[in-house]
Amino acid sequence: MLQGKVLIAQGGGPTAVINQSLVGAVQESKRLNTEGVYGALHGVSGIVNETMLDLGREPDANLEQVARTPCSALGSTRDKPDLAYCQEIFKVLKVHGIGTFFYIGGNDSSDTLRILAEEAKKARYSLRCVHIPKTIDNDLMINDHTPGFPSAAKFVASAFAGVNLDNRALPGVYVGVVMGRHAGFLTASSALARKYQDDGPHLIYLPERSFDIESFTADVQSVYDKLGRCVIAVSEGIHDENDIPIVTKMAKNVEHDAHGNVQLSGTGALADLLTDSIKKQTSISRVRGDTFGYLQRSFLGCVSEIDELEAREVGVKAVQFASKAGRNGTVTINRVQEYAVEYNLSALEDVAGKTKTMDDGMIAASGTDVTQTFVNYARPLLGKRMPVAYRLESPKVKKI
Amino acid sequence: MLQGKVLIAQGGGPTAVINQSLVGAVQESKRLNTEGVYGALHGVSGIVNETMLDLGREPDANLEQVARTPCSALGSTRDKPDLAYCQEIFKVLKVHGIGTFFYIGGNDSSDTLRILAEEAKKARYSLRCVHIPKTIDNDLMINDHTPGFPSAAKFVASAFAGVNLDNRALPGVYVGVVMGRHAGFLTASSALARKYQDDGPHLIYLPERSFDIESFTADVQSVYDKLGRCVIAVSEGIHDENDIPIVTKMAKNVEHDAHGNVQLSGTGALADLLTDSIKKQTSISRVRGDTFGYLQRSFLGCVSEIDELEAREVGVKAVQFASKAGRNGTVTINRVQEYAVEYNLSALEDVAGKTKTMDDGMIAASGTDVTQTFVNYARPLLGKRMPVAYRLESPKVKKI
Repeated sequence: MLQGKVLIAQGGGPTAVINQSLVGAVQESKRLNTEGVYGALHGVSGIVNETMLDLGREPDANLEQVARTPCSALGSTRDKPDLAYCQEIFKVLKVHGIGTFFYIGGNDSSDTLRILAEEAKKARYSLRCVHIPKTIDNDLMINDHTPGFPSAAKFVASAFAGVNLDNRALPGVYVGVVMGRHAGFLTASSALARKYQDDGPHLIYLPERSFDIESFTADVQSVYDKLGRCVIAVSEGIHDENDIPIVTKMAKNVEHDAHGNVQLSGTGALADLLTDSIKKQTSISRVRGDTFGYLQRSFLGCVSEIDELEAREVGVKAVQFASKAGRNGTVTINRVQEYAVEYNLSALEDVAGKTKTMDDGMIAASGTDVTQTFVNYARPLLGKRMPVAYRLESPKVKKI
Repeated sequence: MLQGKVLIAQGGGPTAVINQSLVGAVQESKRLNTEGVYGALHGVSGIVNETMLDLGREPDANLEQVARTPCSALGSTRDKPDLAYCQEIFKVLKVHGIGTFFYIGGNDSSDTLRILAEEAKKARYSLRCVHIPKTIDNDLMINDHTPGFPSAAKFVASAFAGVNLDNRALPGVYVGVVMGRHAGFLTASSALARKYQDDGPHLIYLPERSFDIESFTADVQSVYDKLGRCVIAVSEGIHDENDIPIVTKMAKNVEHDAHGNVQLSGTGALADLLTDSIKKQTSISRVRGDTFGYLQRSFLGCVSEIDELEAREVGVKAVQFASKAGRNGTVTINRVQEYAVEYNLSALEDVAGKTKTMDDGMIAASGTDVTQTFVNYARPLLGKRMPVAYRLESPKVKKI
């Protein structure tokens, strides 16, 4: 039994499949004959502002189309509620008779839900809270991986497969900056479409290792001397041995967000600083840099079919757990074989606000590449529709 | 009859379908029982260096896989030959018995071919020269459009469809910088996936119109005041009324290439300058910018099926024209109905080194949008597999 009306919201950065989870939760709630299914616009802010959609009246055919559309259809928020904010939330939930709340999001959103669940308990407001995981960063504890990551990883792998070919056609140095402040999974995924021995990325810099600009220059020069070209994947979150972001160290002006974090996305600063440094420190003439930016999480039409299925399933399972388990929690994904997963309900506190980073076993000893362990872990997630690049095999014409 | 052995090369920036043209030319040459089919590595530089592949020995199955792989499989070059360079080329062609040369490329490569054809005539070296068109810029004269553009346009449309949804979920200002130094076709393609009235891009800045930073700021503020968000597509080639690139005006340090052109691609400078300017001139807090960079021409898996077919066909037609027409030229694409095209052999001089830009009728009177004429022109090129974004349609829950 689902308690009261159901409310669903989406928080944090969008993903390519976040609406699969929304639709899974809506459909399963309707199937269980709940009193009503509402959707709050722009996460928890839609609750305090009392701006909600009556999702029970959404036609099934349109729901299926929305499921295949990237980016939070309900809108998102970065709001993190304090006690006063929570009390406003309870007021609205109460007048609308909402007893079950599903929040689709990453570690920040799960922490929002943990706070909300605790305050509800203190306020003796009976609210069943279940977190539905999503994040392209793949940094949620307990989870083998998180919905949203496989599709973003497919984008990054496809992008690097392409720029590797481009760089092979017109040789030089190429730096591609990938999202991920603390966890390197997405940057590491740049390696997943490598096929031939000399395919790039030839160097991968992850936030799990500290970054040194002099070693970087030497690494680039060494690859360039050997291959006459060099493709480099860099996490936006690279930092020095004192955890100071490289973009802060190298740039004069950097923007800080409301939480005091340096702005890493939505600027090409890091790529430009690194390419400028290579140009100054080496004699390599063609040096280019791109920042993949928001395309990684929103691009229309780059989706892993594994990700689509699992994102739908975590939405469905959340409703089933809320109906049967009799406790709050977060849906977690556990890999049981190559390749199959099962879903569990884990404690909110074990995921909320925590960050998982890459295991040492996934990072090469050099610190500038991934291991086969990472490739074996991540490759199945991209699905079977991932394209493959081919080369000409013809023999060379003999010189006369 | 094809004269002597056939040589094929690829020049300029890669595209998603440039290998379709290569494979079309190779297969048709083989079908006509030519004496041999060679491929020069890295464009004309592969001829002077005598580095060529014997493409006649390429297995058909692998050719088909290469056709579906983005970026010049033979490698590319920016070399533009002078007289001495041409004479080196003729030496190599002569000793290998090459009498027919196909060069796949844009306006620079067609100009290379024009020079080569003229020098061959002067040197009395009998060489049949046919240019096979490609360019994501879509800026070749005579052609209705050019192979490579439809797939790049699909990438740009898909990217803007995604960032529009992302920006709707987490509102603010978003600037996306698109390739195209003189022609705005690719930037204009950002509009092709718009569906709902308030879908972005809300502002489009093309190199066909001069750019003024104060009008820009006012435009952005006006859209933001109306919608609470603003998505902007900007061509990397925007310039002021004196044709000075905006990136040069606004930045202190810009790089120039060998031809004295300002470096526009492979740097996030323009997006960062524009977002910084919005932050300084308005009170809008969330302002983000991305530069789409090399992904636009190389991304693995974003291809228009129309583009694939036409790119193959221009390769095939080039060989047929070389065999039958008895003159040099460039294959051009002519649209005959909605949607069908025919292929002609046009004079090299009419395309070589020239640049087509957008018709006035394709640009809105405001100068910051495209017209329905452009959409009607470009939309069929994306093909039928272009995904479509959907929104929730549920009614709002009544406030209590």
